[in-house]
Amino acid sequence: MAEFSIIDRYFKQKHARQSNVNLGIGDDSALITPPENQQLVICTDTLVEGRHFPSSTTAHAVGWKSVAVNLSDIAAMGATPHSILLAITLPKIQEDWLDNFCQGLFACCEQYGVELIGGDTTQGPHLTISVTALGWVPKGQAITRSGAEIGDYIVVSGQLGDAAFGLQHLGHPLQKRLDYPTPRCELGKHLLGFASSMIDLSDGLIQDLQHILNASNVGATLQLENLPTDHALHSLSRQQQWQYAIAGGDDYELCFTISPENYKKLCLQKPNVSLSVIGYIESALGLRLTYQNEEQALNFHGYQHFA
Amino acid sequence: MAEFSIIDRYFKQKHARQSNVNLGIGDDSALITPPENQQLVICTDTLVEGRHFPSSTTAHAVGWKSVAVNLSDIAAMGATPHSILLAITLPKIQEDWLDNFCQGLFACCEQYGVELIGGDTTQGPHLTISVTALGWVPKGQAITRSGAEIGDYIVVSGQLGDAAFGLQHLGHPLQKRLDYPTPRCELGKHLLGFASSMIDLSDGLIQDLQHILNASNVGATLQLENLPTDHALHSLSRQQQWQYAIAGGDDYELCFTISPENYKKLCLQKPNVSLSVIGYIESALGLRLTYQNEEQALNFHGYQHFA
Repeated sequence: MAEFSIIDRYFKQKHARQSNVNLGIGDDSALITPPENQQLVICTDTLVEGRHFPSSTTAHAVGWKSVAVNLSDIAAMGATPHSILLAITLPKIQEDWLDNFCQGLFACCEQYGVELIGGDTTQGPHLTISVTALGWVPKGQAITRSGAEIGDYIVVSGQLGDAAFGLQHLGHPLQKRLDYPTPRCELGKHLLGFASSMIDLSDGLIQDLQHILNASNVGATLQLENLPTDHALHSLSRQQQWQYAIAGGDDYELCFTISPENYKKLCLQKPNVSLSVIGYIESALGLRLTYQNEEQALNFHGYQHFA
Repeated sequence: MAEFSIIDRYFKQKHARQSNVNLGIGDDSALITPPENQQLVICTDTLVEGRHFPSSTTAHAVGWKSVAVNLSDIAAMGATPHSILLAITLPKIQEDWLDNFCQGLFACCEQYGVELIGGDTTQGPHLTISVTALGWVPKGQAITRSGAEIGDYIVVSGQLGDAAFGLQHLGHPLQKRLDYPTPRCELGKHLLGFASSMIDLSDGLIQDLQHILNASNVGATLQLENLPTDHALHSLSRQQQWQYAIAGGDDYELCFTISPENYKKLCLQKPNVSLSVIGYIESALGLRLTYQNEEQALNFHGYQHFA
């Protein structure tokens, strides 16, 4: 099948149209009219079979996840996701697989109001998917990694370690959190004007939080007793629980810093996802871990991209 | 080496900064303030080792080409290229290879005034590079595939078939045209207000021109005697020459349609790349080939993405 038939058949579906997309799939490039007083937010993330998802993952989940991990990066700026481009490299055309992949991809697009506006379909020996996501944020309001202030709370959404546990226990209900991450798009937008810095958790809390600390030139203490974990993890030793929660990858939760006053205001607005204060920002550089006020040794490592 | 060290060491180079990039590499997403009265043009193209370039290709050429093929798609809209994101999947970290790849990538960025604003570096069994390119075009002026009018000339830039010949004759000087394609960015911009439709040639003239004919709902005649080819091809039989020129991929020249009056005006402005009128648009659908006014059988096929 020629690339063009694949595009026509699978990718030119009429989902979630954005009003300011002037040209989508089908020309040399897509064409977008920027909304007034907004800045463009853009990122790209790649999923490689066997590396970023187990080879046993369903095509539907791969489609969903390839979009979701990118929307998570858009959400982490406080931006509203808008559209994606899909660069997919396939060993061969398997119609069933492509059907299911597209259903998963478009399900995620639909859920978050995102349009597929372009891409490239290529043949290669190993399944590799790179999605580029675009979003918009009001001018000057994007939440970066560099704004954390001394005294700020460190807050995470949802639960930590679910996906890492799921990866170690394929077939367990928590595998769903590995296969179908939930980008926190509503929460991300909601945090505009509240959070002082933000990142999404993909490589494990410790490693990702460190990016905020470095960019903001501050330190932090994490209170291990406050880590939000699923009850499935509660029968494990504390060390094991912490390992999943602070070093496990693929959470795709938001981690942000916020002043205590802003946090109070935020909670009054009852955001529709659970939030946990898991520590605070300090002037002393470095990251300290405590359990019930006792310092714990730090010998955890997050996901290494090249092992 | 962790992904972050690779990014810091190789990709965070201070080249070709764009004034309206508010955040580049180093946060969850890049942040761009759209210029006034412009539309965003965006595309993505993937290069897979052994498929889109021979495994013997130098890292420097792979770096150049991965940018150039995308800028060609931006140029084909009449847009000015602005920035790129790089998603690269590498089997392992070879410092020499990465050094040379980056030199080639940044050489192309420098040449066309493009900034690397983000990306993702992943490990996987097969070298795969997806670049997303962004550009800007004055509102309402983008040149699409759908505007060809009956009576328009069909014009191509540069020479056709060089890269296909180079691929069949590795070591020949024309291999340079395969390894280092020249995106026609200046010409693309120049054609705003002149050309009625445009596409860049990546899969071979016949296949790519067909996209213009389909999108514009018109037909065409190509005059084979007018195909601009390198003198290296002139010792071949006419059939072989044509095969390279109309069915060979990887030209990355622009093919556009333009009214005879506009073409006259354009030539008076002496664009700095050679142009050849190779045919004309007609109402009768389909594509006809003639040689000195005699119709020739059409049994050429362009590049097939899935073979």
